[in-house]
Amino acid sequence: MTTDQHIALQDLDLFCRHAFLAVGADQATADAATRAMLHGTTFGVDSHGVRLLPHYLKALQGGRLNRSPLLQKVGGFGAVEVLDADNAQGAVGAYHGMDRAVELARQFGLGAVAIRNSSHFGPAGAYSLAAAQAGFIGISFCNSDSFVRLHDGAMRFHGTNPISVAVPVQGGDPWFLDMATSAIPYNRVQLYRSLEVRLPEAVASDAAGVDTTDPNAAEMLAPLGGEFGFKGAALAGVAEIFSAVLTGMKLSFDILPMGGPDFSTPRQMGAFVLALNPEAFLAPENFDAGMRRYLQVLRDSPARQDCRVMAPGDREWEISRIRAEKGVILDPVTAKEFRVLAETLGIAPLA
Amino acid sequence: MTTDQHIALQDLDLFCRHAFLAVGADQATADAATRAMLHGTTFGVDSHGVRLLPHYLKALQGGRLNRSPLLQKVGGFGAVEVLDADNAQGAVGAYHGMDRAVELARQFGLGAVAIRNSSHFGPAGAYSLAAAQAGFIGISFCNSDSFVRLHDGAMRFHGTNPISVAVPVQGGDPWFLDMATSAIPYNRVQLYRSLEVRLPEAVASDAAGVDTTDPNAAEMLAPLGGEFGFKGAALAGVAEIFSAVLTGMKLSFDILPMGGPDFSTPRQMGAFVLALNPEAFLAPENFDAGMRRYLQVLRDSPARQDCRVMAPGDREWEISRIRAEKGVILDPVTAKEFRVLAETLGIAPLA
Repeated sequence: MTTDQHIALQDLDLFCRHAFLAVGADQATADAATRAMLHGTTFGVDSHGVRLLPHYLKALQGGRLNRSPLLQKVGGFGAVEVLDADNAQGAVGAYHGMDRAVELARQFGLGAVAIRNSSHFGPAGAYSLAAAQAGFIGISFCNSDSFVRLHDGAMRFHGTNPISVAVPVQGGDPWFLDMATSAIPYNRVQLYRSLEVRLPEAVASDAAGVDTTDPNAAEMLAPLGGEFGFKGAALAGVAEIFSAVLTGMKLSFDILPMGGPDFSTPRQMGAFVLALNPEAFLAPENFDAGMRRYLQVLRDSPARQDCRVMAPGDREWEISRIRAEKGVILDPVTAKEFRVLAETLGIAPLA
Repeated sequence: MTTDQHIALQDLDLFCRHAFLAVGADQATADAATRAMLHGTTFGVDSHGVRLLPHYLKALQGGRLNRSPLLQKVGGFGAVEVLDADNAQGAVGAYHGMDRAVELARQFGLGAVAIRNSSHFGPAGAYSLAAAQAGFIGISFCNSDSFVRLHDGAMRFHGTNPISVAVPVQGGDPWFLDMATSAIPYNRVQLYRSLEVRLPEAVASDAAGVDTTDPNAAEMLAPLGGEFGFKGAALAGVAEIFSAVLTGMKLSFDILPMGGPDFSTPRQMGAFVLALNPEAFLAPENFDAGMRRYLQVLRDSPARQDCRVMAPGDREWEISRIRAEKGVILDPVTAKEFRVLAETLGIAPLA
């Protein structure tokens, strides 16, 4: 396998499933974890794509993640449920939680699920999109170990705490937002280090919280918003309160680092998902007409010079169609890791 | 009355109520509209404070707003209600909607209310804070007539579409976010025009969508996020979809301008409020402990040089205490308008 070879998404899907089963994860874990990573890889969110496979395998082998989790409803009231994910890989609880939120929304018009004892859940958009594809508005939040300073702060305080919202569109792709509440993703810093490129202004700071454009000096990320970073920090706070406080799980600054060295202790992370049934609010044809007009005016609206106006998700849907047809090229590090995995786990390598 | 005289908040409150009653608004309208404006003035959100009084009176007198609205539940399902505000002043439906959302959250753990046939609702934070003060997490959204371009767009597309979230804190002030999804508020442009000061970079554009720092050339605002303005535009989209699409009301670019000239036609705006009961998710003492630890670590965290770390709302709570004690100084335009109002409406002028 050369590093510039396109690999079909279904081949990646199979490889990941086999790898999970080979380390003793149960079928539900293999299914959910693979599905979430494939969401990332399909939509071009490669930081949360299949490159995470070796990480998850290590956490399953180390005991951080439970290979045979028993998910249980442990609380709730009305249109709210509390789900204990039993230290499952993060996607297991998040997909299950969103399935439950959708069922609650069918019954009550909307429903929320607080997920306890979860872990890194990958791309937040995987779960909101699952709701939208079932005809519901989906919202998902997660916090993560700290990388992002407060607007006026000089400490890694919040995680990149994503917020995702997906909205069904009759006869079209869902409207689809999946954003970190930091100015840039941390992997951008890592990328710029390897490329030896300066960072944009005001997106990262040194250990004292002083802005730096040197990726090697970057110790923390700025919150979204630049001069108005108090807004980004507050949005990170919303994700934090929903995913950590409402679940009774760890705050970002208390979470064990994703990258270890400890791979045996469960990280006690929370996550939060919410679904709304548009039909509880208005007739489906009126909702659909509203979304259609909104998107039509948006896509037909004048662009700034050399720009193209897109709705949230449009770029991702385009990438997904290209990748579904052509496959994807793995980054060299991941490609190499997958070759090693195939050998050590005794599973079929990628073609 | 000189323009630098402090006026007690309760005097402003009374003056506003008398003015509303003097133009024939019913008591419920006078109460809700005054309460929302006093929220703005109390917390230092002066753009949405009592300076809006002459505007609302004009809209009530012109017929845009209904002076005796009959609010009705016109739909809903489970934990969802649809409220027709009968073209009431915006705060009337929004406060009533949040009251209903809190009741639904008492019954179902969470509740959402889509408000139809509303109008400019003033400060979004007024309604989320009302929920938090009742012990619930409150969320409110509204869209408004278009001022803000899309990230790559050259058209006034979204309104400044606020998002507000407030969270109760046992023994302390609620955590409290109320943000426009634009880079800056439009009144900042107006202020800089009068001060003859340049705008910051990348917060406003001319009619072609080209960035400008000249406040006189600014035809539209940029979305929050600068280089990452697609995030701010998407957040504006969330507010738009919830407040306009889910309510079946007008999209921002279809709303009649707030400033007229038409003050007789109802603007058919929607709004959306949501409440969650923390106790549906976990024991109150665990929720309270989580919020306390989150806020304590935040407020004790190291600051950037010459900065001070604050939680969302901290600045506003400080202002509110100062203003509750000392009163406020009205801007000269509003002070003059209030003198004229007292005369034309035959009500007692501010002392």
